[in-house]
Amino acid sequence: MHLKKDDVAKRPPMGWNSWDNYASGVTEEQLLDNARELAKLKSSGWEYVVCDIQWSDPLAGTKSRKGIVYKNFAPLTMDAWGRLIPAASRFPSAADGRGFAPIAEKIHDMGLKFGIHIMRGIPRQAVHARTPVLGTNQTADEAALPNSICAWNGDMYGIDPASKAGQAYYDSIFKLYAQWGVDFVKVDDICHEHLYKDAPYGEAEVEMIRHAIDACGRPMVLSLSPGPALIGKAWHLGRNANMWRITDDFWDDWKLLRDMFDRCELWQRQGQEGRWPDCDMLPLGTIGTGFGQPRKTRFTREEQRTMMTLWCIFRSPLMMGGDMTRLDDWTKSLLTNASILAAQQTGREPEQVIKDDMQAVWTSLSADGGRYLALFNFTDGPRKVSCSLGEFEQTVKEAKDLWGGRPAQLENDVISAELPAHGAAMYHLRG
Amino acid sequence: MHLKKDDVAKRPPMGWNSWDNYASGVTEEQLLDNARELAKLKSSGWEYVVCDIQWSDPLAGTKSRKGIVYKNFAPLTMDAWGRLIPAASRFPSAADGRGFAPIAEKIHDMGLKFGIHIMRGIPRQAVHARTPVLGTNQTADEAALPNSICAWNGDMYGIDPASKAGQAYYDSIFKLYAQWGVDFVKVDDICHEHLYKDAPYGEAEVEMIRHAIDACGRPMVLSLSPGPALIGKAWHLGRNANMWRITDDFWDDWKLLRDMFDRCELWQRQGQEGRWPDCDMLPLGTIGTGFGQPRKTRFTREEQRTMMTLWCIFRSPLMMGGDMTRLDDWTKSLLTNASILAAQQTGREPEQVIKDDMQAVWTSLSADGGRYLALFNFTDGPRKVSCSLGEFEQTVKEAKDLWGGRPAQLENDVISAELPAHGAAMYHLRG
Amino acid sequence: MHLKKDDVAKRPPMGWNSWDNYASGVTEEQLLDNARELAKLKSSGWEYVVCDIQWSDPLAGTKSRKGIVYKNFAPLTMDAWGRLIPAASRFPSAADGRGFAPIAEKIHDMGLKFGIHIMRGIPRQAVHARTPVLGTNQTADEAALPNSICAWNGDMYGIDPASKAGQAYYDSIFKLYAQWGVDFVKVDDICHEHLYKDAPYGEAEVEMIRHAIDACGRPMVLSLSPGPALIGKAWHLGRNANMWRITDDFWDDWKLLRDMFDRCELWQRQGQEGRWPDCDMLPLGTIGTGFGQPRKTRFTREEQRTMMTLWCIFRSPLMMGGDMTRLDDWTKSLLTNASILAAQQTGREPEQVIKDDMQAVWTSLSADGGRYLALFNFTDGPRKVSCSLGEFEQTVKEAKDLWGGRPAQLENDVISAELPAHGAAMYHLRG
Amino acid sequence: MHLKKDDVAKRPPMGWNSWDNYASGVTEEQLLDNARELAKLKSSGWEYVVCDIQWSDPLAGTKSRKGIVYKNFAPLTMDAWGRLIPAASRFPSAADGRGFAPIAEKIHDMGLKFGIHIMRGIPRQAVHARTPVLGTNQTADEAALPNSICAWNGDMYGIDPASKAGQAYYDSIFKLYAQWGVDFVKVDDICHEHLYKDAPYGEAEVEMIRHAIDACGRPMVLSLSPGPALIGKAWHLGRNANMWRITDDFWDDWKLLRDMFDRCELWQRQGQEGRWPDCDMLPLGTIGTGFGQPRKTRFTREEQRTMMTLWCIFRSPLMMGGDMTRLDDWTKSLLTNASILAAQQTGREPEQVIKDDMQAVWTSLSADGGRYLALFNFTDGPRKVSCSLGEFEQTVKEAKDLWGGRPAQLENDVISAELPAHGAAMYHLRG
Repeated sequence: MHLKKDDVAKRPPMGWNSWDNYASGVTEEQLLDNARELAKLKSSGWEYVVCDIQWSDPLAGTKSRKGIVYKNFAPLTMDAWGRLIPAASRFPSAADGRGFAPIAEKIHDMGLKFGIHIMRGIPRQAVHARTPVLGTNQTADEAALPNSICAWNGDMYGIDPASKAGQAYYDSIFKLYAQWGVDFVKVDDICHEHLYKDAPYGEAEVEMIRHAIDACGRPMVLSLSPGPALIGKAWHLGRNANMWRITDDFWDDWKLLRDMFDRCELWQRQGQEGRWPDCDMLPLGTIGTGFGQPRKTRFTREEQRTMMTLWCIFRSPLMMGGDMTRLDDWTKSLLTNASILAAQQTGREPEQVIKDDMQAVWTSLSADGGRYLALFNFTDGPRKVSCSLGEFEQTVKEAKDLWGGRPAQLENDVISAELPAHGAAMYHLRG
Repeated sequence: MHLKKDDVAKRPPMGWNSWDNYASGVTEEQLLDNARELAKLKSSGWEYVVCDIQWSDPLAGTKSRKGIVYKNFAPLTMDAWGRLIPAASRFPSAADGRGFAPIAEKIHDMGLKFGIHIMRGIPRQAVHARTPVLGTNQTADEAALPNSICAWNGDMYGIDPASKAGQAYYDSIFKLYAQWGVDFVKVDDICHEHLYKDAPYGEAEVEMIRHAIDACGRPMVLSLSPGPALIGKAWHLGRNANMWRITDDFWDDWKLLRDMFDRCELWQRQGQEGRWPDCDMLPLGTIGTGFGQPRKTRFTREEQRTMMTLWCIFRSPLMMGGDMTRLDDWTKSLLTNASILAAQQTGREPEQVIKDDMQAVWTSLSADGGRYLALFNFTDGPRKVSCSLGEFEQTVKEAKDLWGGRPAQLENDVISAELPAHGAAMYHLRG
Repeated sequence: MHLKKDDVAKRPPMGWNSWDNYASGVTEEQLLDNARELAKLKSSGWEYVVCDIQWSDPLAGTKSRKGIVYKNFAPLTMDAWGRLIPAASRFPSAADGRGFAPIAEKIHDMGLKFGIHIMRGIPRQAVHARTPVLGTNQTADEAALPNSICAWNGDMYGIDPASKAGQAYYDSIFKLYAQWGVDFVKVDDICHEHLYKDAPYGEAEVEMIRHAIDACGRPMVLSLSPGPALIGKAWHLGRNANMWRITDDFWDDWKLLRDMFDRCELWQRQGQEGRWPDCDMLPLGTIGTGFGQPRKTRFTREEQRTMMTLWCIFRSPLMMGGDMTRLDDWTKSLLTNASILAAQQTGREPEQVIKDDMQAVWTSLSADGGRYLALFNFTDGPRKVSCSLGEFEQTVKEAKDLWGGRPAQLENDVISAELPAHGAAMYHLRG
Repeated sequence: MHLKKDDVAKRPPMGWNSWDNYASGVTEEQLLDNARELAKLKSSGWEYVVCDIQWSDPLAGTKSRKGIVYKNFAPLTMDAWGRLIPAASRFPSAADGRGFAPIAEKIHDMGLKFGIHIMRGIPRQAVHARTPVLGTNQTADEAALPNSICAWNGDMYGIDPASKAGQAYYDSIFKLYAQWGVDFVKVDDICHEHLYKDAPYGEAEVEMIRHAIDACGRPMVLSLSPGPALIGKAWHLGRNANMWRITDDFWDDWKLLRDMFDRCELWQRQGQEGRWPDCDMLPLGTIGTGFGQPRKTRFTREEQRTMMTLWCIFRSPLMMGGDMTRLDDWTKSLLTNASILAAQQTGREPEQVIKDDMQAVWTSLSADGGRYLALFNFTDGPRKVSCSLGEFEQTVKEAKDLWGGRPAQLENDVISAELPAHGAAMYHLRG
């Protein structure tokens, strides 16, 4: 039932994802260590622990793969039905066919939810080994399209929507995930990819996956990657998925953050209950360990606030990318500002009011009948950013400074603030 | 003030436009004849009378121009300030510098509003004659960009936003239109045009025009053409205009009508008070007279209802294109169905629920707390089109058939109707 | 040595290829039957017998594959080094590791030369089986690029030019072909293919193949497919290959034949000894058997002559595509017209003189100091096609009609002929 | 007669052009001063003196136009037939309707030939003034296409090939140029321009101009600009023009010079008597005066030799761009190296032998039965560049060093030279 689909993500999801820090090599221990830290922030709304790509590759992240995130033709751990399972060398509890169930259980016991990353399609090694497809008398090669591949990872073939084995294969993996206790699936290589001129968005595969989730017996959030998703497919994305990336991979680079304002402008009317345009993970605190270059985020503190402000007023899902086990106080303060997060969870009708080369202004309605207002300075120096109150029908008696230390100036029906380079301010206006 | 901008079109405008029937050659007499007929439908909401393109060309539409809609380098009627004025040979009341004022007054006296078409820019003949620009000591050539031209009409040069004379020229023409009593301006060659790779949407000129309207002292609806507008510019369009074309010129051809479903899918979340994506004129009844080929619309009756249903549930502006003086009863019935028009005027949150190669289903909320539901059959034969009520949270006790003769079938939480080829049904659901 | 490269094809090659008639399913018997017929035309210059695609697939062309030219993930016959070998079920003499050697020997005994088709790359089944690469301690997966695939055939992965195993693999297959006695290799999926935006022409693989041929110890003609090759790569193609397709697959359709005039115009200056732009096979006589639809060529007799005339004056290689065992007298006459073929073998400086929507005229120099002149009628009715002799410095005392029955008219320094619809005439002019 | 067309440029033209130094503002005095200097080099082959763009604009190049090369809507000097004539303020001898005739006569008296630049089309000021077209009863507006404009200059409208007045207008201007004694016409905005997606090459206008030259009664070289010309139009260019630019404007920048090797590779087979791909002017010595920034060429001496070597072995036309009145000895030595220029004038079959990221090698046949060989170093440091003699059939007893100081090394059938950064060597090989 499609409606139920939206019920699993009535508000934009919040959580932690392993990619920004551990790349393709996260281990069970790291996953659980981070989960334990995330659980401490649960009251702020942080909920999902997502194990990102390549968890079935026993050697991913090991020294033998120095600097290699995706190894061509790496042997993957797979069951007899051609389904990828966690590599026991990295996820010891997965041994003996238990898969991610033990980890999911531990995470559930922390009061959190558990998510995994998958690539669309069926493993090439299953196809060439002609493994049987569960519930059919067909084999993996009958489910696959030999020329439907990912541009940047060689593990999978795309599924042939015209084949019976294809839907059966997707059904078989999502039933397995349901058994494991998976609550969130990030499907990759499906939302926008660069190899195929003619199929930048895999509509048929999205529909097969939607069907498989609906049939698997467990609610799961469906998240689509990578981006940028095509705005022309907004309706189809919303019908079938709960969140979808509106950007290519996001990292700690001002150019990418500045660019996100353009993407949020484009997608501002597309978010609604159960259907969320996604600005990608938050590269905060310590990141990059799995890429061989652990580092503090390159964003200035002002840029970090700007990012949080934009993601929240726009209502993007929030997935912390940094190492939770090394969370510093500053970063923690960003992740636990209740007023800012309230905009993300309960704001309504987010809208860009002003955007030019120098600045942007966004607003949304707050749950208490007031209004959020965010001011952004794009320039490399300080700048006063202003907005006429005539832009929206709102009398303003009070403008609460949600980050603090940056009080609003109200004069002649104009609200303004002095903002440092790349800085932001966010206010809660009440009449 | 931008907010005021939206106030002039809180609901999607309805009216009549001269293009579909009179092409570039409409006359004062024809304009007023059609206005008088439109006034009879005023209680249904029909309000604007819009004189389309080329009204300053004395010979447009005359026998000497047989089959020529746009004559290269045609001499245009112009005042001393390089402003185009109505050709007195076609609009006799415009003589002696009265411009469109007498016509506007007559139309206002009918209880209607008056609109005109303009091309973006400044007349080439003003530029090459170096006419002065009102309120400046500059001349027309100083306001123009020599390489900013329209792909399909040779009258104008685009305005240079970096010049002082440019904004002054736009201010000067909108002040004139305000004096005339113009209520609606359709600006052409601005919303999407095909010649310039690098500037498919004239942002800077849109902003100059917005400024000129805000400064002219009279509220005016700003309508942008032609289309398709770029979805990536949705925010800018909404900030500056009241309606904008989401399609190239629309005519009575099923392929174009079928295509409009794709365009409405794309733009479905962009309409709001004062900001309306526009599906273009309604080629109903008798059209094409000015093109030398008067004809009855080529749409079947089913297709005509399909068009009205889509335009109304989507909340497109409605501009009748057919000859009002030859309005037949069937066409009149389409234009006066109060229940259908109510969806266009007061429906909220229009949303496509289903669309595939065979069918589409749309819904919106009605003002009384009920819901509109529209079913569409894309196929060339009869087809039963259905929708699960689970698609939206709505108990359904009654499904009122708004066009009549096509009662809904309600069974097991599925609502359906038997629809003829290219046909539609529209219902008002109440719980 | 590059110079030697050109020596194997000083004149544009002539031969027969199995594709047009047998598709992917030609057998040893069919190959030899056709070779025997071709040998009878040897005195006209016909020399190469080329076994086209999929000869390692045991089931290709069998009833179990009804209508399927390329079977996804079909098991291919392969040796221990990951090299494809002929399927013994279709090529019985290939059993026991003899490969194509026995067939090559028989064809050589007929006084002919033997060619094979290959896809660029290394079999996916070798890669996933990690077969060793001859002469290295590496395996097939170390030679392959997982995302370098063909758009229309799923057998192979492209070779990684940065890997040692890659060049070694190419060397290993060409050494095998040399042992078999192969004289001609048509490499497919390399000249222009549509999947990869960023690599429409596989320069690095062409260079590896060139290296492998130069090192294999036997002269071989290198033919590249499919087309259209990119004109911007003309120099690289000429440096490395002996012939390359300037068109996508050519069939018996006037539109394709008309289009070839545009392609020949584009490539007219690029042919020289050892380096030939290739107009593709001649779909003459009986073709299509292997596609399940044997048919007489759909070209009219006039169109057939037009094709032969263009291919010959342009100096394209000539590869008969029709069934040699069912060669009718008419078709045979096309293939054995010594005067026409002389233009292909020995003409110099072919040049288009006239081309417009109605007609074309080509000329080239003949070995005896005279000149060839070809007149073409593009229209669907009869037309007189003319050319001023002033177009080239040639006194004309005699204009020998090379096809016969269509004498030239010479008047006032203009040569002309009455040509039927889609017809051609070809003359040998002498001063 | 087309053949005659090629006769006016049997060898690639050599001359001087005013653009690189004087931009749009050259004067009669400057033109003649430069001509007198060029005449001193006549024995080296330098022949054409070409007055580049905007000679009918009285104010071009004056102080009132500081920094403005093309003034929007500048009033141009024009005769009663809408034909542009030289501005007498800049070309005093042109007064009283004498046009360029006096200047042409003076230049002819120096033993040189005279050329002018024109934009394709008809002046906009003629069109809007509706001036009569000579030899017709039509006016300029009837010859023009209102939307056929240049992307970077606003003077002209393109000519409508469907109009009678169009060909008549072109005929009228070329007859005037013939009366003036013009020997060379550089037609601009016709060979490749960027505004019009659908018409990057003005085939119809090229044909009208060809017709007008053939009919004007005086032989004239037809040179087409700007570039890059489309290789797909090579045949049409060769049929109608004598030279055409294969590059956008060329300046003294190594990136552009390096890029020219790619362009010469592309066009290497297209040059022949009367038909020359053109690498653009030589920015040598002092240039840029008219742009307000006179400077010595930014090319190093090595780069200057590299440029001369490439242009000459490729057989590009040579048009000196620098100030002839300030010619220094070094630059003069580049322009008068008889051996190098002989390759440009009489070399045959220029061919690129090697090109990769580091180097290139070119060869051509010399008139005496020997061979030219040019070695180029693309790297930023010294490099030994080599070529196997096996690349061409040529025994080599002597390798004459044509620039001097860089003797060839001959060893084991390999010829090589040590070249400095961006340097070149050129040899004449004899057996």
